[in-house]
Amino acid sequence: MILKEKGISKAVISRLPRYYRYLGDLLDSGVERISSGELSERMKVTASQIRQDLNNFGGFGQQGYGYNARVLREEIGKILGLDKVHPMIIIGAGHLGQALGNYGFDKNGFKVVGAFDINPDLAGMKIRDVSVQMLDELPEFLDQHVVEIATLTIPKEAAVEVAQILVRNGIHAIWNFAHTDLNLLLPEDVVVENVHLSESLMRLSYNLTNIVGAEADRKKKIGAEKR
Amino acid sequence: MILKEKGISKAVISRLPRYYRYLGDLLDSGVERISSGELSERMKVTASQIRQDLNNFGGFGQQGYGYNARVLREEIGKILGLDKVHPMIIIGAGHLGQALGNYGFDKNGFKVVGAFDINPDLAGMKIRDVSVQMLDELPEFLDQHVVEIATLTIPKEAAVEVAQILVRNGIHAIWNFAHTDLNLLLPEDVVVENVHLSESLMRLSYNLTNIVGAEADRKKKIGAEKR
Repeated sequence: MILKEKGISKAVISRLPRYYRYLGDLLDSGVERISSGELSERMKVTASQIRQDLNNFGGFGQQGYGYNARVLREEIGKILGLDKVHPMIIIGAGHLGQALGNYGFDKNGFKVVGAFDINPDLAGMKIRDVSVQMLDELPEFLDQHVVEIATLTIPKEAAVEVAQILVRNGIHAIWNFAHTDLNLLLPEDVVVENVHLSESLMRLSYNLTNIVGAEADRKKKIGAEKR
Repeated sequence: MILKEKGISKAVISRLPRYYRYLGDLLDSGVERISSGELSERMKVTASQIRQDLNNFGGFGQQGYGYNARVLREEIGKILGLDKVHPMIIIGAGHLGQALGNYGFDKNGFKVVGAFDINPDLAGMKIRDVSVQMLDELPEFLDQHVVEIATLTIPKEAAVEVAQILVRNGIHAIWNFAHTDLNLLLPEDVVVENVHLSESLMRLSYNLTNIVGAEADRKKKIGAEKR
């Protein structure tokens, strides 16, 4: 079975974590075996799409049997690299950095091993069992520890400079929450996943603004309050 | 100028917040006027794509002049609904809920007016100037206040039930951080924006795992440590 394959489309890759989650939900509810038809119904993706997606990686289904949910989940986990521990640091130990450090990503192998900030008030603060260090200690830390992923929860003004420090010190993966598209500025062998929370909220606002019912309800309610 | 238009593709809508952000960056750096060519270079989108995108909304450019950055940003803001205040509540006042409440989305009109949790230890805790209330007070709160958006930062097990309470009480927009795709379960006049943080991290892990250089570096380093 081919576990790694280059040239898989971005759309397929972006669906893999969802397959992984759905299969976990199925196993939690005691389902061990599932057809592409049933998986399709749950995920609102066509069955042929699912078969096509999974065929990219060698195909895991058996004619007339469907998929073994446990095996399929494990294999998708391997493709996603979840069978290994990925040591991670957090740069920016404010509210969002603390939230991400406490989130529990370690159950998927993402283990927080360090946290950094420039605010001396945060020095020594614990995020789970990790103590916040000052940012100027970062290069030495990276020299002495294996770190794969850096999470950036800092203002955009500082993001480019910090990203460059990270890259110079051997980091190849950045999970970026700063309001700037870092991938446009870094070498090609550095992967960046941007999470722009305010853009997500703006998409919601656009969709809300364009739903007539919501607008009507709102006006009715405001009207009622004014009476 | 047409400000609202139905049937704009999802891809265009998803680019609008980015245009909005880039135009803000330009204005911050003193640039008032920009051609689609310059905007294209900064955003790594083709100039014709930009002209096409903006033409969906009536077209804001002038031949030979380019775009007035301030006017264009304002108009895109209107399209996104950012010219209005959107009262928002947060359900789930744990680390992530607190982080989102403290994030500063209010500068784009998203004003947190309430926060709810089931944990009595959090009752009365302040998120900015909002006190955390208990979840059973939610229906009465929604009856007495204008709320447009509900942010869900709760475990997936509780998400569907809470979403149904929200919808029954007139909420049409949910910003969902729970690990489940709520949009598949709610009425069509409710818009949901799912933010699946762990899926984002898994995409990063996939991309990292498939970069040969990163793997090689990691092994080298682990090897060096073991010596």
